[in-house]
Amino acid sequence: MHKHISLLKPFFLLSGLAFFTGAYAQNQQAQVPEPMPMKSQMTEYYEPVPKVVTPGAVPSNWVVPPPSDAMVLFDGKDLSKWKGKDGEAKWTVSDGVFTVVKGTGDIETKETFEDYQLHIEFKIPVDIQGEGQYRGNSGIFMQGIYEVQLLDSYNNRTYVNGQAGSIYKQSPPLVNAMRKPGEWNVYDIIYTAPRFKEDGSLHSPARITVIQNGIVIQNNFTLTGNTPNVGLPKYTKHGKGPIKLQDHNDPSKPISFRNIWIRNL
Amino acid sequence: MHKHISLLKPFFLLSGLAFFTGAYAQNQQAQVPEPMPMKSQMTEYYEPVPKVVTPGAVPSNWVVPPPSDAMVLFDGKDLSKWKGKDGEAKWTVSDGVFTVVKGTGDIETKETFEDYQLHIEFKIPVDIQGEGQYRGNSGIFMQGIYEVQLLDSYNNRTYVNGQAGSIYKQSPPLVNAMRKPGEWNVYDIIYTAPRFKEDGSLHSPARITVIQNGIVIQNNFTLTGNTPNVGLPKYTKHGKGPIKLQDHNDPSKPISFRNIWIRNL
Amino acid sequence: MHKHISLLKPFFLLSGLAFFTGAYAQNQQAQVPEPMPMKSQMTEYYEPVPKVVTPGAVPSNWVVPPPSDAMVLFDGKDLSKWKGKDGEAKWTVSDGVFTVVKGTGDIETKETFEDYQLHIEFKIPVDIQGEGQYRGNSGIFMQGIYEVQLLDSYNNRTYVNGQAGSIYKQSPPLVNAMRKPGEWNVYDIIYTAPRFKEDGSLHSPARITVIQNGIVIQNNFTLTGNTPNVGLPKYTKHGKGPIKLQDHNDPSKPISFRNIWIRNL
Amino acid sequence: MHKHISLLKPFFLLSGLAFFTGAYAQNQQAQVPEPMPMKSQMTEYYEPVPKVVTPGAVPSNWVVPPPSDAMVLFDGKDLSKWKGKDGEAKWTVSDGVFTVVKGTGDIETKETFEDYQLHIEFKIPVDIQGEGQYRGNSGIFMQGIYEVQLLDSYNNRTYVNGQAGSIYKQSPPLVNAMRKPGEWNVYDIIYTAPRFKEDGSLHSPARITVIQNGIVIQNNFTLTGNTPNVGLPKYTKHGKGPIKLQDHNDPSKPISFRNIWIRNL
Repeated sequence: MHKHISLLKPFFLLSGLAFFTGAYAQNQQAQVPEPMPMKSQMTEYYEPVPKVVTPGAVPSNWVVPPPSDAMVLFDGKDLSKWKGKDGEAKWTVSDGVFTVVKGTGDIETKETFEDYQLHIEFKIPVDIQGEGQYRGNSGIFMQGIYEVQLLDSYNNRTYVNGQAGSIYKQSPPLVNAMRKPGEWNVYDIIYTAPRFKEDGSLHSPARITVIQNGIVIQNNFTLTGNTPNVGLPKYTKHGKGPIKLQDHNDPSKPISFRNIWIRNL
Repeated sequence: MHKHISLLKPFFLLSGLAFFTGAYAQNQQAQVPEPMPMKSQMTEYYEPVPKVVTPGAVPSNWVVPPPSDAMVLFDGKDLSKWKGKDGEAKWTVSDGVFTVVKGTGDIETKETFEDYQLHIEFKIPVDIQGEGQYRGNSGIFMQGIYEVQLLDSYNNRTYVNGQAGSIYKQSPPLVNAMRKPGEWNVYDIIYTAPRFKEDGSLHSPARITVIQNGIVIQNNFTLTGNTPNVGLPKYTKHGKGPIKLQDHNDPSKPISFRNIWIRNL
Repeated sequence: MHKHISLLKPFFLLSGLAFFTGAYAQNQQAQVPEPMPMKSQMTEYYEPVPKVVTPGAVPSNWVVPPPSDAMVLFDGKDLSKWKGKDGEAKWTVSDGVFTVVKGTGDIETKETFEDYQLHIEFKIPVDIQGEGQYRGNSGIFMQGIYEVQLLDSYNNRTYVNGQAGSIYKQSPPLVNAMRKPGEWNVYDIIYTAPRFKEDGSLHSPARITVIQNGIVIQNNFTLTGNTPNVGLPKYTKHGKGPIKLQDHNDPSKPISFRNIWIRNL
Repeated sequence: MHKHISLLKPFFLLSGLAFFTGAYAQNQQAQVPEPMPMKSQMTEYYEPVPKVVTPGAVPSNWVVPPPSDAMVLFDGKDLSKWKGKDGEAKWTVSDGVFTVVKGTGDIETKETFEDYQLHIEFKIPVDIQGEGQYRGNSGIFMQGIYEVQLLDSYNNRTYVNGQAGSIYKQSPPLVNAMRKPGEWNVYDIIYTAPRFKEDGSLHSPARITVIQNGIVIQNNFTLTGNTPNVGLPKYTKHGKGPIKLQDHNDPSKPISFRNIWIRNL
């Protein structure tokens, strides 16, 4: 395929495209053309909007203790299982929860993982501000690469493949199961890592199930690659990787986490 | 393949086999031989034993209310969403739970389903008796056909592909996440129905994820067919089907259920 | 995620983007923003280049007769199994082959199909001209929707996810198994149609295996949707569909087909 | 589940079963019971019979040369790429083909493989004798473990999951595409090896597509384990493995092979 209506084509090449793809046009004459750069908005879509489903109400202090074989990644006391970009994780711990400190960078587990079940709880602050992606934005990265979006999606519209519980820029959640700011949300994630061949090509893709507040929002979704903000997903061979939490560094109030544990599968 | 050591073969045919397969031998001379009948024990294996994992302790009254889009199959009051073999479901309802009445037969939902998320809670009676398969045995059948085993598997050894949380005779649970008799167990089940072609052959198999008490015990397991007690799994074309609960009718004490809801996926 | 360096963002919105996305900017203020339009070149990439593999040489007249259960879609005589946009298929039949007549439009089978094995042979004319996508371009559309690219990819570089044997804009061929212009190429395609749920959402994606001249070039590739020239793949519920062949209407010489048959799977 | 009609059960335990399961009964009292032994016939079924499809006729000397990137496993001259149980492969080479020599044992490639495309041609001798499994029986084992059945299935009924082109005891061929004795049959096999986790459990099962004489007879079939004659399939962790050909050592005439090549995928 690759079909242009011929009358439009000269115009396209001579005017519209020329403005912003000078570098690209040159590349076409070279040996290895690069794909024309995209904008982040090109991979954002707004419809259909996942239906809002209200999770059953639970008391705020229902913190289920981890099972006996879990590795506890945060027990309410310290960030000793985590590291930051320059060594120590610099987010704050207080009252059994830890909170993003903007500008200190992402944090990630010291331990690395392959296939697992991850339990993580997070709270949007009750006085959250901003809108769209600028309201409680963070993210949980499987193996440091594949992002499950964290955002305040309670009465906050954004592109659906970027709302809370989306596989970022790949798959919106099946429904919007977000609790209100000030209440604790739970993600239970079942993750199967991709496998690669010796030559670096993909053997089997990553798959992910996400249950938010007891409601299935991703049902064994097959990822087509990593989860970039700009451009298309792509797989690059890798081994085990950490759980990474994002310091999104936007103007909204920082979010908090508690009761994080993981079980290898 | 199909390799017999030739010296043994005549012996096999003339003695051991002859005793119990007269019908089979005749069939071989007919147009359509039947497979030689199996015994139930032939599809039961005992090793490796799934590791015991103790779920986090929770108060007995932690009954999470269903999400807003769930169909509640049992709300503690009556069995109006269920039917028995002769019409009415004859199990007893009391104190917000319902209990198997042995000899009254299986019960199943009046509604039928395809792909779904099912939440179900069950309790082995504190004074349970018996052992192996004769101790708290019941089962939850997806679409009335594919069984997730219910059993008291707390300190009760049986064949591993028949213990609690197994896909009966197909897949043992990844771990043994059973709570003690007298405590409530939760199964959260994510089920994808098989699809069939017009000619009745299989398009895509059933898949199931089971989370027991917050612990993944079946991870997107692909079923190879139905779950018979005797013989091999097999797919036969079908449409939507009910959730069925089994009256196993064994000498052990009857088990109870509460808080059952389902969401179509 | 969704991370902009804040200093760049105002500039982006006010200048670069403004030129060509006026309509988009307005949409953002409306209820339902549209994704920002893409250019076709944004989904075209050139690396890594599939290795060239030379198929074993065979005489030009090795035309394997179809198996006894195949539906023959072209037997060398006429296009009675095909139709064009206005009724009749207007491509020419001569000497046991048929040839694209540019400007007469795509042709498709009168019969529709779901899962199947398709055998199709095509020849790039010996005096082919043009380069890149403008050299022997056509396409075979599964169910009228999902394109396996036809192109002269013998010593003719283009974006790899648009060369012969690619799943157009989704997957380059594993290797380049193209025969020379003037020689007959064979595609043997094993196609599994996607299935949809009642609500229109996807149950299971389309999968495709392509063997070109006896060489596996697509190995059970899972499609992420249709195969548009511009924009991202997307699934839309559909039933059975025809085999469609493309009149690409470019300046290159028309290509020819022979020995086309199909078997339902 | 596990439901016996109680009146039958004592009879079952005391008579029929007792005869041949003394060892089993003892095992049940021990710590680790073994599954009750099965007979080979219990995993053999005869219905439905795959439809006979006649492949298109081709001259006997249509031997497509291998593609340029193939590893040629037999080029008509010698068995230098193969080994037998005691070192050398002792099958005979003559006139560009090699032939099983009964009693000399299986042969296998010196090289080992993971994922691949395999082309292999075989001929049932024109004067073949015997019936059922005793007529032209051999087998091709992927990685030395997973068998694609070789047999004369031209007018020769046997259990369908053991006829030519079956995944032995797991999956009958979709159709019977066998050529007559004396004619060359071709298998084109696309094989994806299973992958295992570090702990030995299965990550992803083996999958196989088989095209016999140009006709798809296995369509991306997912194996549930190895392919034993007696008992149930089972996965055991392994790495790369050879292509193995079976010396079945039955009274029928030996079969021959030619033009074997493989491409890593």
